[in-house]
Amino acid sequence: MASEHAQSESSGTYEEFESRVERISNVSNAAGILRWDQEVVMPDEGTPARAQQLSTLSSISHELLTADETGELLAELESADLPDERSAVVREVRRQYDRETSVPGELVERISTATTNAHPKWKEAKANDDFETFAPVLEELVELKREYAEHVDPDADPYEVLFSEYEPYIDLETAERVLERLRDRLVPLIDAIDESREARRASGSRTQSDDEVDLETDAFAGSFDDDDQEALARDVLDSLGYDWSRGRLDTAPHPFSSGTQFDARVTTRFEPEDLLGSITSTIHEFGHANYTLGLPDEGYATPLGEARDLSVHESQSRLWENHVGRSRPFWEHFLPIARERFPELEDVTPEGAYESANQVYDDNLIRVEADELTYHLHIVIRFEIERALVSGDLDVEDVPEVWNDKYEEYLGVRPETDAEGCLQDIHWSHGSFGYFPTYSLGSVLAAQLYAAAEAELGPFEDDIREGEFDDLNGWLRENVHQHGKRYTTPELIERATGEAFTADYFLEYVESKYGELYDLEEY
Amino acid sequence: MASEHAQSESSGTYEEFESRVERISNVSNAAGILRWDQEVVMPDEGTPARAQQLSTLSSISHELLTADETGELLAELESADLPDERSAVVREVRRQYDRETSVPGELVERISTATTNAHPKWKEAKANDDFETFAPVLEELVELKREYAEHVDPDADPYEVLFSEYEPYIDLETAERVLERLRDRLVPLIDAIDESREARRASGSRTQSDDEVDLETDAFAGSFDDDDQEALARDVLDSLGYDWSRGRLDTAPHPFSSGTQFDARVTTRFEPEDLLGSITSTIHEFGHANYTLGLPDEGYATPLGEARDLSVHESQSRLWENHVGRSRPFWEHFLPIARERFPELEDVTPEGAYESANQVYDDNLIRVEADELTYHLHIVIRFEIERALVSGDLDVEDVPEVWNDKYEEYLGVRPETDAEGCLQDIHWSHGSFGYFPTYSLGSVLAAQLYAAAEAELGPFEDDIREGEFDDLNGWLRENVHQHGKRYTTPELIERATGEAFTADYFLEYVESKYGELYDLEEY
Repeated sequence: MASEHAQSESSGTYEEFESRVERISNVSNAAGILRWDQEVVMPDEGTPARAQQLSTLSSISHELLTADETGELLAELESADLPDERSAVVREVRRQYDRETSVPGELVERISTATTNAHPKWKEAKANDDFETFAPVLEELVELKREYAEHVDPDADPYEVLFSEYEPYIDLETAERVLERLRDRLVPLIDAIDESREARRASGSRTQSDDEVDLETDAFAGSFDDDDQEALARDVLDSLGYDWSRGRLDTAPHPFSSGTQFDARVTTRFEPEDLLGSITSTIHEFGHANYTLGLPDEGYATPLGEARDLSVHESQSRLWENHVGRSRPFWEHFLPIARERFPELEDVTPEGAYESANQVYDDNLIRVEADELTYHLHIVIRFEIERALVSGDLDVEDVPEVWNDKYEEYLGVRPETDAEGCLQDIHWSHGSFGYFPTYSLGSVLAAQLYAAAEAELGPFEDDIREGEFDDLNGWLRENVHQHGKRYTTPELIERATGEAFTADYFLEYVESKYGELYDLEEY
Repeated sequence: MASEHAQSESSGTYEEFESRVERISNVSNAAGILRWDQEVVMPDEGTPARAQQLSTLSSISHELLTADETGELLAELESADLPDERSAVVREVRRQYDRETSVPGELVERISTATTNAHPKWKEAKANDDFETFAPVLEELVELKREYAEHVDPDADPYEVLFSEYEPYIDLETAERVLERLRDRLVPLIDAIDESREARRASGSRTQSDDEVDLETDAFAGSFDDDDQEALARDVLDSLGYDWSRGRLDTAPHPFSSGTQFDARVTTRFEPEDLLGSITSTIHEFGHANYTLGLPDEGYATPLGEARDLSVHESQSRLWENHVGRSRPFWEHFLPIARERFPELEDVTPEGAYESANQVYDDNLIRVEADELTYHLHIVIRFEIERALVSGDLDVEDVPEVWNDKYEEYLGVRPETDAEGCLQDIHWSHGSFGYFPTYSLGSVLAAQLYAAAEAELGPFEDDIREGEFDDLNGWLRENVHQHGKRYTTPELIERATGEAFTADYFLEYVESKYGELYDLEEY
């Protein structure tokens, strides 16, 4: 036990430390508002000034974090006897501090220049379907990121170091095991779905009257007015219980959510011919914002009031999007609301809406347009390729062919161009290697959390059918949101679900859902 | 002459200095976006986080400015042989540096706490018409601001020190002389208008058919839809040549403009029964934003790309609002555009619109609702009262009576409550003493600049009638906007107009305009 004197001493130190941490967070949160503004409301020509503002804020928060004072405070607090919550704050800041101080400023500068340069090259390469334009900058980025990883931890697998930037507490082995299980179980499931589809087509059962056999895929066909779609997106958010006094809805070309527990905003987008897409994207972004809104007010600007990492964040968006928004009872609840905005949906049935929201594509090449199953094979392909790139087992020039081969092997489709192949995603041009896996880990965790919530509270079907989401949300608040970064990710998962991180629930969920939907005997 | 060696040495120092200055500006500009966001789009409950973000940014820019390094760089550059533009940057930063380093942090803190505390007290006092609630905090603020002025310059008149915070290069004597001239010439002009009005009323000429004698005051009577008013506000901005690629229009409870040369935004507000008010307010804010947009891109984030002080800024808004927007040819140009949005304006004539936009009130107590003439008496009253308060010649408890007496003396109306008397404005609750005069100085300068532009280019009447504003704006760009803070305010005025700052043009403008409008023999 620390003496009273030592306690009060470390308490003064802790306060100094905390106010430093809050300062850094407030600078980052200000930058978050500037980025929201840039995506949503900034006039076109505002970029030069905005770029300078953001770069200034980012270098200020880097300097505050890596200052000698931060290191001294950390060392002092680590040898003190702190209450658990404070220890957690120290643990989180220590991680960030070690990482940011280990990488030389000139390397950060070179990476920043290389990514600034890479982005237009990637755009050009994608537009012209010309991988050669992108290859040299991709090569440079892989090299720089390897160098970066070497600084952070010279003894570790460099890909593991990069992955841990996005997911600090899930080890790469766990992630890899999960992704392998997804690949090994989803490939046969998707094959079975394809076969079932083929068989039905061959038997000529594709007639309008034979609903028993054919799935509805196009319940939302038509062209839908933007303003009405926006009104419906607001209905979605109302219905899920979004707190408008701490949020807002806007449009952005690439929907995202951002903010803090006091102000967590959602963006979405509207395409006239993709009403379903705007609904599911709005539900997805609600999941992110709803997590942010559940962080405790009193932890604002410290790790105790900040979200755990990307997989946990994605678990929240996927839980709402898939387990709620792509469920039968949700469409029983929501279809009447949608019909009020769009009377042309009069003939759509809840079952037709459910089927349309859950169709599995047999020829989709594009990750962001993928369904709940094939999505993960898109991720597995990127994961396998970027691991090989970073380890040096794969040369940049061979990426297109390997990419196409893997699409053929896992998904049964072969891209005809690199634009719809390995050039489709922006992430590598940002120098982001190790990011993609967190999308799949999020889906897997969503299923595990949803199952744990149902195990504790009973099935949510009736609640969802009645548009009653308080129990589910209350469980998430209590077991996930309110803890911020108080626990590491494995601790958080264990406390919430009573188990270690596992893909069991996700696999059970998709096999049962799609087995029933596609009437697959073996599932 | 400096040697080549010294030149290149000071050039390296200058670059270091400039990057420091840019950093400070970028932090302030980021804060500007956060404030815009707060006024325009932030959800209601976002305040606690926003307050922390803004306070963090403000203390970071204070620390960067007042750091020893800034002082050392300033001293070094002041002894170097710098080109004029660089000397101007050094001059501006020196001013700010001296002021911010001379005031102890704990006093800044006390002022900040006192104003935070004063604002709700002022609101409460105004709501309850109870000056006693506000008096003690007003007393405290006057005392703190006196103390503040004592730190900045113990030898100067404290009110002069406070005034120079808003208007660093116009001396208080000049400001006072201008305000006295306004008072001495506007009081009889307004009296003459009142007499003319009384005479017409007495002669019973107030009949609908007798347009010759009576002025139209209500051409815009009616109730006007918000969305249509917004469309018309966009028409106004289109017509004046607002650059939408670097700006946007939104609504805010208290209209304002803010931003930089890359992104200068306008806000306005719409009241169903005040169409004219939304038009003139939009033109006013256009004037501010148009100044900002005229600052040179290459000076961004340094004083060379930042606006001169409040009076010059206000000269731009008033020039567009009054000399353009309240002119006869403007209404000949704009009325047909307004009629497209509001067919109910069919019977309004350009002359009727002109008269309505220029009526002089005989019983208005509220500054923000005042006309082009009485406005300045509202300012003179505040100026006289706050000077006496700061010097100690007037006790806080006597403010309401002195206020009411002055309204009776200068404007011929006596407030019946303090809510519509000395409690009407927010400024004192912010601790802003010395701010009000800049509003009148801006109007005066607008007239001087407009006259100089017409002397060079010929009268703008025909241009305005045709909605052609390029020549006027080109003149303002060349003579005012592009210089940023390159020259001091007196230098800027002298270069633009060939004369020292003078109220002559303003007085000539209002006496001629209102003499004609009210058919006053003596004018």
